[in-house]
Amino acid sequence: MSAVEIREVGPRDGLQIEDPIPTEAKLEFIDALVATGVGRIEVTSFVSPRAVPALADAEAVAAQLDRWPGVEFSALVAGRGGVGRALRAGVRRLEYVVSASDGHSIANVGRDSAASVALIAPIAEQVHAAGGTLEVIIAIAFDCPFDGRTPPQRVAEIAAQAMASGADSLAIADTVGTASPMRTAEVIDRVRAVAPATELGIHLHNTRGQGLANAWTAYEHGVRRFDSAAGGLGGCPFAPGASGNIATEELVYMFSDGGIDTGIDIDRTLDAARLVSRLVGKPAASNLLAAGGRLRPSNEGDNR
Amino acid sequence: MSAVEIREVGPRDGLQIEDPIPTEAKLEFIDALVATGVGRIEVTSFVSPRAVPALADAEAVAAQLDRWPGVEFSALVAGRGGVGRALRAGVRRLEYVVSASDGHSIANVGRDSAASVALIAPIAEQVHAAGGTLEVIIAIAFDCPFDGRTPPQRVAEIAAQAMASGADSLAIADTVGTASPMRTAEVIDRVRAVAPATELGIHLHNTRGQGLANAWTAYEHGVRRFDSAAGGLGGCPFAPGASGNIATEELVYMFSDGGIDTGIDIDRTLDAARLVSRLVGKPAASNLLAAGGRLRPSNEGDNR
Repeated sequence: MSAVEIREVGPRDGLQIEDPIPTEAKLEFIDALVATGVGRIEVTSFVSPRAVPALADAEAVAAQLDRWPGVEFSALVAGRGGVGRALRAGVRRLEYVVSASDGHSIANVGRDSAASVALIAPIAEQVHAAGGTLEVIIAIAFDCPFDGRTPPQRVAEIAAQAMASGADSLAIADTVGTASPMRTAEVIDRVRAVAPATELGIHLHNTRGQGLANAWTAYEHGVRRFDSAAGGLGGCPFAPGASGNIATEELVYMFSDGGIDTGIDIDRTLDAARLVSRLVGKPAASNLLAAGGRLRPSNEGDNR
Repeated sequence: MSAVEIREVGPRDGLQIEDPIPTEAKLEFIDALVATGVGRIEVTSFVSPRAVPALADAEAVAAQLDRWPGVEFSALVAGRGGVGRALRAGVRRLEYVVSASDGHSIANVGRDSAASVALIAPIAEQVHAAGGTLEVIIAIAFDCPFDGRTPPQRVAEIAAQAMASGADSLAIADTVGTASPMRTAEVIDRVRAVAPATELGIHLHNTRGQGLANAWTAYEHGVRRFDSAAGGLGGCPFAPGASGNIATEELVYMFSDGGIDTGIDIDRTLDAARLVSRLVGKPAASNLLAAGGRLRPSNEGDNR
C-alpha cells in the first residue's frame, strides 16, 4: 500500500482536447503507463462523441483492458446515458462529474449544478446495481470561467449531498487551474469537515504554475489521492499553449524526494511522457522532462 | 510593508547564461521591472567577464541605477575582487555566494567550501567599511551536481558561521532545482534554529517543477523573502530547455490569490516577462504567461 495513490488521467483528461489518435496508440500509451507501476488509470470517458471526438472510441478501449489485470481502470461519465454505456462496456469504476457552478454546468451538460447533483443518487443506484463503485468529482471547485469565484461552501454542500446520495468516494477538481495553496486548503478543510470518513481525491491543473504547490498543500491537509497525467498532458481549449494536468513525474518526484512512497517509477513515467508527446505531436508540459529527469552529474552543472 | 518581499533576480540570474544583450536593453528590462512595484532587484554580478560574459557590463548597469531612487538594487559577488569592483561602482547591497559543497565551490571559484566561508568575515568588513550591507547566499543547499546530496547540517553550519562573521542576512539557494517540499522544510528549520533572528531568504529554481511548492513550504516555515525572475528566466547551462528561476508572476499569483500582499502587479510582471523574452529571443518558462494571465472569462473555458 502506497503512502499516496496517484491516478493517471492522461488517457482521458490528457487526450480529450487533442486531435483523435488511433485506439491502438492509446493502448500503447496505457501499456507504457502500466509499466510505471501506477495502480489506477482513468482510461476514457463515456460522453458525447460529438462533444469529445478524441474519446469516441471509449468502448473499443474498454474492451482491451483485460490485458492488464493488476490495474484499476476507471472512466468518467457526465450523465445517465454515459453510465449505461460504461457499464455495458464492462467498466465498473466510474467517476461522475458535477460542476459546482451553474454557468459551467449548463455549458457542459445543459443542466444547472443542482440538477446535476440530483442525478447522483440514481446514478449511484445504477452503478451499485451492476456491482460497480462511484466517485463524484466536484468540478469548478475554485473558479468558474462564467460565474467567477465558487463559494467553498457550495463545494462542501455538494460533497455532503454526494455522500448522502451514495457516492463511494469524492474528488475536488480545479478544472481551470486557478487555485492557490491558501484556497486549496480552505476547500479541502471544508469538504473534510462534512465528509470526514471519505477517501478524498484532488484533481489539479498546472495552468498557472500552481499545481504542485496545491498538491503539496492538499497532502498536508490530509489528501492521499491525486490525479495527474504523464508529461503534464491536457491543455485548455480556450488558451492555446496553456499547461494541462499536473505532470505525474513531477508529482512523483515531489513525494519520493521527501521519502513518501507512490509505487511509481519516475524514469518509466518519463518514457510514457515522451511516448504520448510523440503520439499527440506536441511537447510535454513538464519541467522535469525538459531537465532530463532527476539530478545526474553528467547533465547538470553550475547555474549558481 | 508587504507581507512577503520578492527580490527580482531576472537581470542577474535570468540573463547570466544567455547571450549578452546590450546594456540599454537591460536598462529597459529593469525599467519594466520597476514598473511592477517590486522593491528589490538584483541587477548584476561582479564576477569574471570571461566566466559570465552576459554580465560584463556590471559597472555600466550600476552607473544608471540612480534613475530609480525608490528601489533597492543589489549585486552578486563571488570573491573579494568583485566586492571591490561593486563598491567602486557605487553598489552598497551585496550578495556573496558560498557553495555548501566542495565540488561545486571548486568548479565555480577555484576554492573549497570552507575557504569560501572563511572569506565571509573579511568581505563583511570590507562592505561595512563602505557603508554597505552583506547577504550571504548558501548555494547548493540541497544537491550538488558533483558531490551528490548536501547534508542539511552543512547548510546550518555555514549559516551559523556567516552570522558570526558579520553577514547582515542569509539566503538558501536551490541552485540546481532539485529540492522538494520535505527537504526545503528541513533545511529551513535547521537554518532558522541556528540563526533565528535573521531575515532568511530563499532562492528557488523550477528546473523539476518543484519551485512553487517549495516556495509555499518556505512561507509556511517562516520565510518571507523570495527570489524570482519575471517569465521564469534563467536556464541551466548543462540542460538545454530546462526551466530557470521560479517565475515572479506565478509567485505573486500564489500569494495574492491567498490574500498575501507582495506589492507587485501581476499584469505588469507579465509585461516585463514578455519584454525580456523578446530581448533574449526565447520563450518564457511561465505557465501563467502561457495561460494569458489570471482567469478571464473571455479566454478560458471548459476543460472538465
